[in-house]
Amino acid sequence: MRLLLISNSTNPGEAYLDYPKNHIREFLGDKPVNALFIPYAAVTFSFEEYEEKVNSRFAEIGHHVTSIHRYINPQEAVENADAIVVGGGNTWQLVKILQEKGLMKAIRKKVKKGTPYIGWSAGSNIACPTLRTTNDMPIVEPMKFKTLKLVPFQINPHYLDDNPANHGGETREMRIREFIEVNRATYVVGLREGTMLLLEENELVMTGHRKARIFRYGEEPLELSSEDDFSFLLK
Amino acid sequence: MRLLLISNSTNPGEAYLDYPKNHIREFLGDKPVNALFIPYAAVTFSFEEYEEKVNSRFAEIGHHVTSIHRYINPQEAVENADAIVVGGGNTWQLVKILQEKGLMKAIRKKVKKGTPYIGWSAGSNIACPTLRTTNDMPIVEPMKFKTLKLVPFQINPHYLDDNPANHGGETREMRIREFIEVNRATYVVGLREGTMLLLEENELVMTGHRKARIFRYGEEPLELSSEDDFSFLLK
Repeated sequence: MRLLLISNSTNPGEAYLDYPKNHIREFLGDKPVNALFIPYAAVTFSFEEYEEKVNSRFAEIGHHVTSIHRYINPQEAVENADAIVVGGGNTWQLVKILQEKGLMKAIRKKVKKGTPYIGWSAGSNIACPTLRTTNDMPIVEPMKFKTLKLVPFQINPHYLDDNPANHGGETREMRIREFIEVNRATYVVGLREGTMLLLEENELVMTGHRKARIFRYGEEPLELSSEDDFSFLLK
Repeated sequence: MRLLLISNSTNPGEAYLDYPKNHIREFLGDKPVNALFIPYAAVTFSFEEYEEKVNSRFAEIGHHVTSIHRYINPQEAVENADAIVVGGGNTWQLVKILQEKGLMKAIRKKVKKGTPYIGWSAGSNIACPTLRTTNDMPIVEPMKFKTLKLVPFQINPHYLDDNPANHGGETREMRIREFIEVNRATYVVGLREGTMLLLEENELVMTGHRKARIFRYGEEPLELSSEDDFSFLLK
């Protein structure tokens, strides 16, 4: 399997999808790829706008996406895809639409057979067994919380250490500690901004300048860098 | 109906439940009340600890709570309660347990008949039609998103304006704008830290020094203060 799971599309002050574009190029290779784009996480802007935004960056690296909403038969579009790219936005909306259209299984099957998968934010989240580590507001109710289960662990994208000033709510670490309290067998990878996980066959590594924070019930959180091997998470 | 819906238990640097305690005293009155406490939102600490924490503050204002986990028949405990107090924590866990024990309907019926209801954070959230405006991580999967529907609008507790530095994720306002995009008929009240809503009969007001930010699809957000009448939200 080949996965590129990116924490966030955009670093503050940069253009959309700018910082990860070279990693995407490396992942997709030199030969131009026309990837299938899943824009369903978009809520306050159209699928066309989303596709265009992604294509303006993909053009810079010699690749292209076509959004799934353009196909009459989305199942078939998945089956024929050379690569699958799932954009961020609202995870709940993304999961609801994928479930309603029966696309979860199709995508899982396709990626399991070796088709490259790129996701960022919500798109990384749904590569996990469930959406239970999303940060998003549950604005719609999906059929169930199960997602693609391409990896056996959970990702928390946009992992952050600070709380804003004067905020009395839970820190992200507190939220994840709640998660592992009730999901004791599951690893959670807090993926900080500007970082991504790369899976090639059975080897999992991280790219980016920040460390990832890894949680599991009963263990002290680990801080691992791009120098470390993340493959133990696949067991 | 009588509701006191509090944004957050604790302001930074203060003792648990300290800032709202006098409002709770005023709401419950001078005669000592033994309220039923719902601690199910607690995930990383025990129901006993939670009960004790709440009681240490309630003792200062001449009242007391008994946690529902002490009763063999929780349905009956709800029916006999003089007041119902629902503490914060993880909204998903709270909703899941209330649904599993069949307590949603019992609490709704009881409060609709006039029994005072106090909630903070998750406890305020579930007074709304659904949990769709929670900030919490969906660490467990409840049967459904429907909650008590004591009011017809949604509350977003811990509403905050800022994002932490270097955070590329959505602001709270962006999240709520996503919510109203797909739930166009529903008002959302962003309840900032240190504020609470008070419903007495058909009159709804806010207490606290910060303003509330009120969202509805197609309308500019309103900023209302403790001087304003919030009763239009009940229609």
